Amino acid sequence: MSAVRAGVLVTGDEVLEGSTVDRNGPWLAQRLLDLGFEVAGIAICGDRLEDIISELDYFAARGCALVVTSGGLGPTDDDRTVEAVARFCQRPLSLDSDLEQKIAERLRAAAKRWRRFDETALQRSNRKQALVPQGATTLDPVGTAPGLVVSVAETGRSSPVVVVLPGPPRELKPLFERALETPPLRALLTRTRPLSRRTLRFFGIPESQLAAAVRELADAIDGYQQLRIGSYVHRGELDLVIRYPTSAEGAAEALAEALAERFPRQLFSRDGRTLDELVAEALAGRSVATAESCTGGLVGARLTARPGSSAYFRGAIVAYDNAVKVRELGVSEATLAAHGAVSQEVAEAMAQGVARALAAELAVSVTGIAGPEGGTPEKPVGTVWIGGWDGAGACAARLWLPGDRAEVRERATTAALHLLLALARGEEPPF
Amino acid sequence: MSAVRAGVLVTGDEVLEGSTVDRNGPWLAQRLLDLGFEVAGIAICGDRLEDIISELDYFAARGCALVVTSGGLGPTDDDRTVEAVARFCQRPLSLDSDLEQKIAERLRAAAKRWRRFDETALQRSNRKQALVPQGATTLDPVGTAPGLVVSVAETGRSSPVVVVLPGPPRELKPLFERALETPPLRALLTRTRPLSRRTLRFFGIPESQLAAAVRELADAIDGYQQLRIGSYVHRGELDLVIRYPTSAEGAAEALAEALAERFPRQLFSRDGRTLDELVAEALAGRSVATAESCTGGLVGARLTARPGSSAYFRGAIVAYDNAVKVRELGVSEATLAAHGAVSQEVAEAMAQGVARALAAELAVSVTGIAGPEGGTPEKPVGTVWIGGWDGAGACAARLWLPGDRAEVRERATTAALHLLLALARGEEPPF
Repeated sequence: MSAVRAGVLVTGDEVLEGSTVDRNGPWLAQRLLDLGFEVAGIAICGDRLEDIISELDYFAARGCALVVTSGGLGPTDDDRTVEAVARFCQRPLSLDSDLEQKIAERLRAAAKRWRRFDETALQRSNRKQALVPQGATTLDPVGTAPGLVVSVAETGRSSPVVVVLPGPPRELKPLFERALETPPLRALLTRTRPLSRRTLRFFGIPESQLAAAVRELADAIDGYQQLRIGSYVHRGELDLVIRYPTSAEGAAEALAEALAERFPRQLFSRDGRTLDELVAEALAGRSVATAESCTGGLVGARLTARPGSSAYFRGAIVAYDNAVKVRELGVSEATLAAHGAVSQEVAEAMAQGVARALAAELAVSVTGIAGPEGGTPEKPVGTVWIGGWDGAGACAARLWLPGDRAEVRERATTAALHLLLALARGEEPPF
Repeated sequence: MSAVRAGVLVTGDEVLEGSTVDRNGPWLAQRLLDLGFEVAGIAICGDRLEDIISELDYFAARGCALVVTSGGLGPTDDDRTVEAVARFCQRPLSLDSDLEQKIAERLRAAAKRWRRFDETALQRSNRKQALVPQGATTLDPVGTAPGLVVSVAETGRSSPVVVVLPGPPRELKPLFERALETPPLRALLTRTRPLSRRTLRFFGIPESQLAAAVRELADAIDGYQQLRIGSYVHRGELDLVIRYPTSAEGAAEALAEALAERFPRQLFSRDGRTLDELVAEALAGRSVATAESCTGGLVGARLTARPGSSAYFRGAIVAYDNAVKVRELGVSEATLAAHGAVSQEVAEAMAQGVARALAAELAVSVTGIAGPEGGTPEKPVGTVWIGGWDGAGACAARLWLPGDRAEVRERATTAALHLLLALARGEEPPF
């Protein structure tokens, strides 16, 4: 069975120029990989008609059997993806009256949110979004734009099937799944071989060292050559992603085992669960609070990003100002004066203080120097103390975090969650 | 003067598969646009050698005079961008001993952060990263990977100059600016016509309405046809970006004037300054605190994302649990029982309460239903009350925000900053 190739095309001046950060391209690429496609690439182009057609031609030239597009389906005239796909597939555009009706209903519902509303602009948008290439399969809109599955009109010409999806992720994702149920996609999926994916998550080792360990282990693992391995750093963590065909499941498992033995403390997730999921699980039936200085609320924000976090998250005290550390967290003026705000003593007092103030069993605290100003030779930018309180005692650890202000804050947040995980499980902190 | 085209190539399985969100591609595209290039597109491909070369060929085929690559310069064997560029430019790789020395020094410095460190892996990385195409201009590393400027070896063949940059943004950005100073780039820049960019920022009107207003105004503006206009929604705001050649500066100004007249309350920034910048400016010499429920700390995190925010940000109380609203913010149990946590009364009490607790002159609060659970017919998911306190009195406004949990939280955060801006300026709230 030869590889079936697919490509992703993201359109829009706003994405090209960085006003909007695209997450659809990588999301689609990952779904396509899981489904067994070989992904030729992601292309991002502006809203020029000829550029969109050119990108479609290039995917076709690379032998792609499928191209998924994102964006360019909006109501304004600069959104031209449907027109480009119609031309590429040699199918004229025509008005779908049923669809026009459905979009109208959705637009009217959305219009209620706004005080000022222009009815003429509304109707114009409506009509434009209901123009579809003849013979295309329409996927009912989740927002106002429909999805489309379009095959080339001319029979005998080898050309990719094009799935056209709107840019907003909450519309794109369900419409992509619906597209998979259409006959052209079902036909393609009979030819692909899905790969399984296994993610091992590490905290506290450099990427080069993990890579060296994987190389050393390779020879001893039967079937290692069938594994496709990538390692990715994000939010201060290191993920090892192993993709494998069913026949190499044993090899994937053997590698995971060997790495768990080599890095027992650093490998914190062997089944793909994220730190956030593990923390949420460990906190079930408990209560937690955070005391934050340099992270400014990021630890609380990350904990509450999960639905259901109100079951264990009491709240946070962001004590940016030292007076707040004293008044709200009960840190003593003497401790602050003797050790400075970025110190073991203050980190511990903050954690204990917030647990008491918010009546939480567990607490973590962060106090550090995120930069760019504020560093000293003894406490350079990136110096962060993470504190913890488990109801019985306090602990704290000092980290030197690399990166700019945003990176230091994000890594400190990740480190605080790791400490919280250890506290909730009654384990040793990982640093 | 005909347009000089440029392309951006982002390499890496981790970007293609979504493990890392690429922000380099759009950043580079925007810089290239400002410098006067026409951007053909951004391509993202995996770490396969043939795919990278194929993408370079496609940019060449589209007439690009410049391609900037991001990523694939790491120490591990799966990073193959330099090798691909060397082949594309027909220049063999050779070891740059000076560069090897520089990288070694940087690696040794970085190594100190880690407890366990493998010296052999270090040396191997070092050598790989010092291999450069013969005749390339080397840009000294900011991290451990150097940047490169490579022209095609064969004279007479029309082929793009390739600028090779490492993936980490804090390395890529300064190296890009250095690349502009090299002779091949200076030569290209004599042929481009830089465009100016003007960004108008709106809050509280739908995109379709702004688009309709721009269309209506177009005829009355002399030189309107020279403007290139895009509108972008992000974080619950709407940006109108106008790019123009120097000759059309008057037209850009006239459009900005006309829109300011039409949307006096919604147009909050006419010079590109962001909401965050305006808030920081308005808070100079003041003090502020936040009380947050559904945003979980996001407002505090956003305020403290800016260096120097300690001058005005006292702190935040994240009162996720109602008991915390009562105990730390002084919201009365009776008010909570009578109106519910998501109500005008509670929003106002939270703002006033945090101002008092943290001794701040100004305060904003957020209490709402971010979903997916917790909605009712009277208070559906997306119902958010934003409260404010200015030292003299409290106010609050109810918003119905669209989107999923993350979007509702982000839009609520933006709305809270808009209210804070109005409070700091002594103006009417914008909603």
